[in-house]
Amino acid sequence: MIKVGVVGATGYTGLELLRLLVNHPQAEVLVVTSRTEKGKPVADIFPSLRGDIKLCFSDPQTSLLEDCDVVFFATPNATAMHQVPALLKGGLKIIDLSADFRLHDAQLWSRWYGQTHAAAELLDQAVYGLPELNRKKIAKARLVANPGCYPTAVILALIPILEAGVIDPQSIIADAKSGISGAGRKAELQNNFCETSETFKAYAVAGHRHLSEMCQTLNTLGKQTVSLTFVPHLVPMVRGIHATVYARLLKKKIDIQSLYEERYKDEPFIDVMPAGSHPDTRSVRGSNFCRLAAHIPDQGDILVILSVIDNLTKGAAGQAVQNMNIMFGLDEMAGLTFPPLSP
Amino acid sequence: MIKVGVVGATGYTGLELLRLLVNHPQAEVLVVTSRTEKGKPVADIFPSLRGDIKLCFSDPQTSLLEDCDVVFFATPNATAMHQVPALLKGGLKIIDLSADFRLHDAQLWSRWYGQTHAAAELLDQAVYGLPELNRKKIAKARLVANPGCYPTAVILALIPILEAGVIDPQSIIADAKSGISGAGRKAELQNNFCETSETFKAYAVAGHRHLSEMCQTLNTLGKQTVSLTFVPHLVPMVRGIHATVYARLLKKKIDIQSLYEERYKDEPFIDVMPAGSHPDTRSVRGSNFCRLAAHIPDQGDILVILSVIDNLTKGAAGQAVQNMNIMFGLDEMAGLTFPPLSP
Amino acid sequence: MIKVGVVGATGYTGLELLRLLVNHPQAEVLVVTSRTEKGKPVADIFPSLRGDIKLCFSDPQTSLLEDCDVVFFATPNATAMHQVPALLKGGLKIIDLSADFRLHDAQLWSRWYGQTHAAAELLDQAVYGLPELNRKKIAKARLVANPGCYPTAVILALIPILEAGVIDPQSIIADAKSGISGAGRKAELQNNFCETSETFKAYAVAGHRHLSEMCQTLNTLGKQTVSLTFVPHLVPMVRGIHATVYARLLKKKIDIQSLYEERYKDEPFIDVMPAGSHPDTRSVRGSNFCRLAAHIPDQGDILVILSVIDNLTKGAAGQAVQNMNIMFGLDEMAGLTFPPLSP
Amino acid sequence: MIKVGVVGATGYTGLELLRLLVNHPQAEVLVVTSRTEKGKPVADIFPSLRGDIKLCFSDPQTSLLEDCDVVFFATPNATAMHQVPALLKGGLKIIDLSADFRLHDAQLWSRWYGQTHAAAELLDQAVYGLPELNRKKIAKARLVANPGCYPTAVILALIPILEAGVIDPQSIIADAKSGISGAGRKAELQNNFCETSETFKAYAVAGHRHLSEMCQTLNTLGKQTVSLTFVPHLVPMVRGIHATVYARLLKKKIDIQSLYEERYKDEPFIDVMPAGSHPDTRSVRGSNFCRLAAHIPDQGDILVILSVIDNLTKGAAGQAVQNMNIMFGLDEMAGLTFPPLSP
Repeated sequence: MIKVGVVGATGYTGLELLRLLVNHPQAEVLVVTSRTEKGKPVADIFPSLRGDIKLCFSDPQTSLLEDCDVVFFATPNATAMHQVPALLKGGLKIIDLSADFRLHDAQLWSRWYGQTHAAAELLDQAVYGLPELNRKKIAKARLVANPGCYPTAVILALIPILEAGVIDPQSIIADAKSGISGAGRKAELQNNFCETSETFKAYAVAGHRHLSEMCQTLNTLGKQTVSLTFVPHLVPMVRGIHATVYARLLKKKIDIQSLYEERYKDEPFIDVMPAGSHPDTRSVRGSNFCRLAAHIPDQGDILVILSVIDNLTKGAAGQAVQNMNIMFGLDEMAGLTFPPLSP
Repeated sequence: MIKVGVVGATGYTGLELLRLLVNHPQAEVLVVTSRTEKGKPVADIFPSLRGDIKLCFSDPQTSLLEDCDVVFFATPNATAMHQVPALLKGGLKIIDLSADFRLHDAQLWSRWYGQTHAAAELLDQAVYGLPELNRKKIAKARLVANPGCYPTAVILALIPILEAGVIDPQSIIADAKSGISGAGRKAELQNNFCETSETFKAYAVAGHRHLSEMCQTLNTLGKQTVSLTFVPHLVPMVRGIHATVYARLLKKKIDIQSLYEERYKDEPFIDVMPAGSHPDTRSVRGSNFCRLAAHIPDQGDILVILSVIDNLTKGAAGQAVQNMNIMFGLDEMAGLTFPPLSP
Repeated sequence: MIKVGVVGATGYTGLELLRLLVNHPQAEVLVVTSRTEKGKPVADIFPSLRGDIKLCFSDPQTSLLEDCDVVFFATPNATAMHQVPALLKGGLKIIDLSADFRLHDAQLWSRWYGQTHAAAELLDQAVYGLPELNRKKIAKARLVANPGCYPTAVILALIPILEAGVIDPQSIIADAKSGISGAGRKAELQNNFCETSETFKAYAVAGHRHLSEMCQTLNTLGKQTVSLTFVPHLVPMVRGIHATVYARLLKKKIDIQSLYEERYKDEPFIDVMPAGSHPDTRSVRGSNFCRLAAHIPDQGDILVILSVIDNLTKGAAGQAVQNMNIMFGLDEMAGLTFPPLSP
Repeated sequence: MIKVGVVGATGYTGLELLRLLVNHPQAEVLVVTSRTEKGKPVADIFPSLRGDIKLCFSDPQTSLLEDCDVVFFATPNATAMHQVPALLKGGLKIIDLSADFRLHDAQLWSRWYGQTHAAAELLDQAVYGLPELNRKKIAKARLVANPGCYPTAVILALIPILEAGVIDPQSIIADAKSGISGAGRKAELQNNFCETSETFKAYAVAGHRHLSEMCQTLNTLGKQTVSLTFVPHLVPMVRGIHATVYARLLKKKIDIQSLYEERYKDEPFIDVMPAGSHPDTRSVRGSNFCRLAAHIPDQGDILVILSVIDNLTKGAAGQAVQNMNIMFGLDEMAGLTFPPLSP
């Protein structure tokens, strides 16, 4: 059994990690830390885990993380970077679900996150944990930067066509919609039921932190600086991201459907749906799947890609477990085989 | 008092019309027809109107519509076109909330609605009932084709910039999101709570009937055949449309904010929000307002317009009442002055 | 025009008050105060009111409340009691939507609200603002204690049968369900969309502050100390209270339907529905109505009363405006005549 | 591997059965029938199962159900009774999730279900599949009548106190609240999102089919004809039942908490929560758990039991799988060990 620690497990990402890990056939949760809830049984904070986990939250300062084989950071941004260096020296593997190690460029990171990076020397060795792009590197990595939820949905929509060079990299628009759990488990008025239910809105149109994360990967895929317009929106639902991605095709008569099916034919968690499909987010709820469908309306030159994931699973904790499986040479689907919850 | 008839009032659009009309200071509902519910008190079908309306649904065949000054059709498509000619001959004014008289081209109509138009000779005199474009024509019209909900939200977002010629008319993308009431008051599995709640999806990516309606108006505004990619989505909420409209700017250094404020400064129901705003659909719930916000992310060349309306009000019944007010020379806001319901 | 001040208008009750007052034909909002938002335009905090209100929030310390004819307190509990005495001395009328003046017994108040009452001398002159019970006293009152939302729904369900003496006052159970707006506009984790959506639970089973408020009135109606078991629950919706009230009938062969219809026949906001009805909360959304239906399952001895209100309207701001209308001799329905918003 | 057939798998109960069975370590789905969808891949109807099930729906008339070890009926009421006799003769085991075999009394069944029972001779051998009451009988049964969702939640709340004789069996009130999935996967206007969202109501107060099912079991437990008032309500959520059960205590000074903990201490799916708890339905979402909490408000004589289940899991398909496990001598939790999905 792989011995697992989870740092900062009081958020929704942490809860989702625990849900997946207590059911994982080859992993065992050894330590769960939380500054705010230390000493309390995890199941007191998360009654859905009553019976599944007996641990109490321990103090991040004094917890025995070094006894673990791997530590997941489900902490707010700018937290993991302070603890990761020591743990890496201790020989542990790290999967960071925050944004601390996603950008290669420390200065770019500073601009978006408002402070100097505390472990910039590690940015080079951190592997961006999108298995569909970086599976081999992840297998050898000691530090994996788990991708953000929006980037996961958007990049998976774009990999086949950017790799194949069939779209204009200057024409990409990603209109993305997220459930409210993406905003985290926080006491904020804007997340109040009465502020988010029975309404819909865009936010951060002027610029969202995930934009730079997306561009970093898309630039590599497109072999040039791509132009991406990214507008996120809030949907009155708990889980799910739906990205509607638009791009201009460079030539007609491309068999887009085959392009996607071929690129993803060996991917265990990518489902290229039949031509004409409209994937809904509930079809992946609680699962690690990404479902994709490609459309060319009116046989014109605008390609529309629909991409759905569960933001807490493939967009966070599920992908993190997938990365753990790869890093430890397990079956990549271990602990992730259950079907989505629908309805 | 203006004497009003409502044909086909058992849908959500009909209910919304009645909600507005029973509260209108200068209108009186005389006749409400329904084939399926004839003979039953309106308030039995719509308990929210108990105390506000004493009428029973009457049979559309035998009802005394000719005693009215104006008749609203809240019928399914391809119904009004059979009844409107006779009523017009009787001297009544007609506001049709269905799609029967929105397209000028009978052949185009036939292609989208799957049958020959029964009153093609009226298409020329029907006025497209978007007051922000056609106020003067509406004032003189005897037959108003009330715009569709998506077209209302999208066209209002585009009028200032197409009129000003500052965007490339070949670059328009409208990513639109609608509450479930847009699908109508029907016994359909796909509208079941368990099929639509806690999920999000696109639909009709291959082509939606509202596309031709939008293009007809946008072509005129843009003085050329525009290229519009339109993708509608379903939001798990009852009311509201949010259109996120993208277009490529033809030149930099345009004061977009002023352009919108100037164009709409005398419009009673258009609210151009301050630069940087993110209007939410609840801010217009139950009201006839459209709120707009313009963004140019990263000072690039892609303009993003956010446009919100209540699909049942400004997107249907509210705009119909606004049109009635204009047609009868009333204060354009009569019966439409109450604030939105929030939260 | 009646000149109105609203103290503490940044909550949902305050917003609802403003929504009603800006549309009221005989009232004008003069002052709106808020400690936290002073100086900001009201419409910046509540975009749904853009265009309807030009005022800024003023500082409660320095605002010109004394220029008003009536002041509404939409403040947290234990706030109004500090300001009301001075305003009363200034000759103003007060409608307090908080719990400060609802209980006649200062000691009981202290027990539930955890502090000494700062204006206990006013408890005797404060009139409990349930017009269906106290209309005449309200008309003469200078200080009205606006009822709580749960008490309004529960007491209105019980008035006819307690007055008529047909139930055992020792047998009353009120199983009540409230939308989330009842918890207020607060940054609290427990009100987060992800904590309240797609779930249902009871709370405060051991004892809720509204219990004493209900019992005070029910004891008077029942002419004895009644026994009331009250269990509140949270429903994943914004607005609405549904109270399901159970009581044991003292004798058979009572025409319960007539009892209710007779008692409430002159009440403008009470709708006794036909026998066998199941009122839903949306049928009163945004309106000041209470709809009631009485059932005797299986012709047994348990009476079931279903009572629905909008917690923000008849359960708070709407009833407050109704009280203002009574206090100033206006038509009791002034400003409250619009139909509910449905769907 | 146990070979499984599912008859009538196009409803939500059928979908939930398939979700559980494809993940079950010792069961294999061999046949899935549907009259309406025969020939179509199951995953076309239920995209959430794409990749998990390759079967097509087969015609119930010609399908090879006899090759199965056990057949689940997830059919509408009055369907299974026509097919079960032949299958039993073929040696198969049957778990019927409909109401056909729940009542022992064929005449009572006829009264509620409006027709003569087609297999009344089997009612005696059918075992009511509530493992917490009938585990031993289920182990030997060939025909199990899987309990209804409301009866499961209500009976589990009452077993300890009726067995112990501490409440007045004439005083029971069950105020129950169900998510919309309880109404089935049907094209009915009343289940439309716009009819059920953002609203709350009671239904069937005059009498619900589950009442007789509950009374049959409660009468046995209480050793007398109990008096049960049962009022079901609809909650705007997909999954979950919350039963709030009231009963009068016969004596004071009973340690209710210990009574529940003791009765259920060996039950794998019953969670007696700490005194003072308020279980929420999301804490059991997608799982086979029932969580219970007992309260005695004000130390009075009214006991309040809160009971939550997922109506599709412990209230239907999960309990059916639990019964299968018992009937085939498997670990009772096999295939049911994953944690609930929260948030």
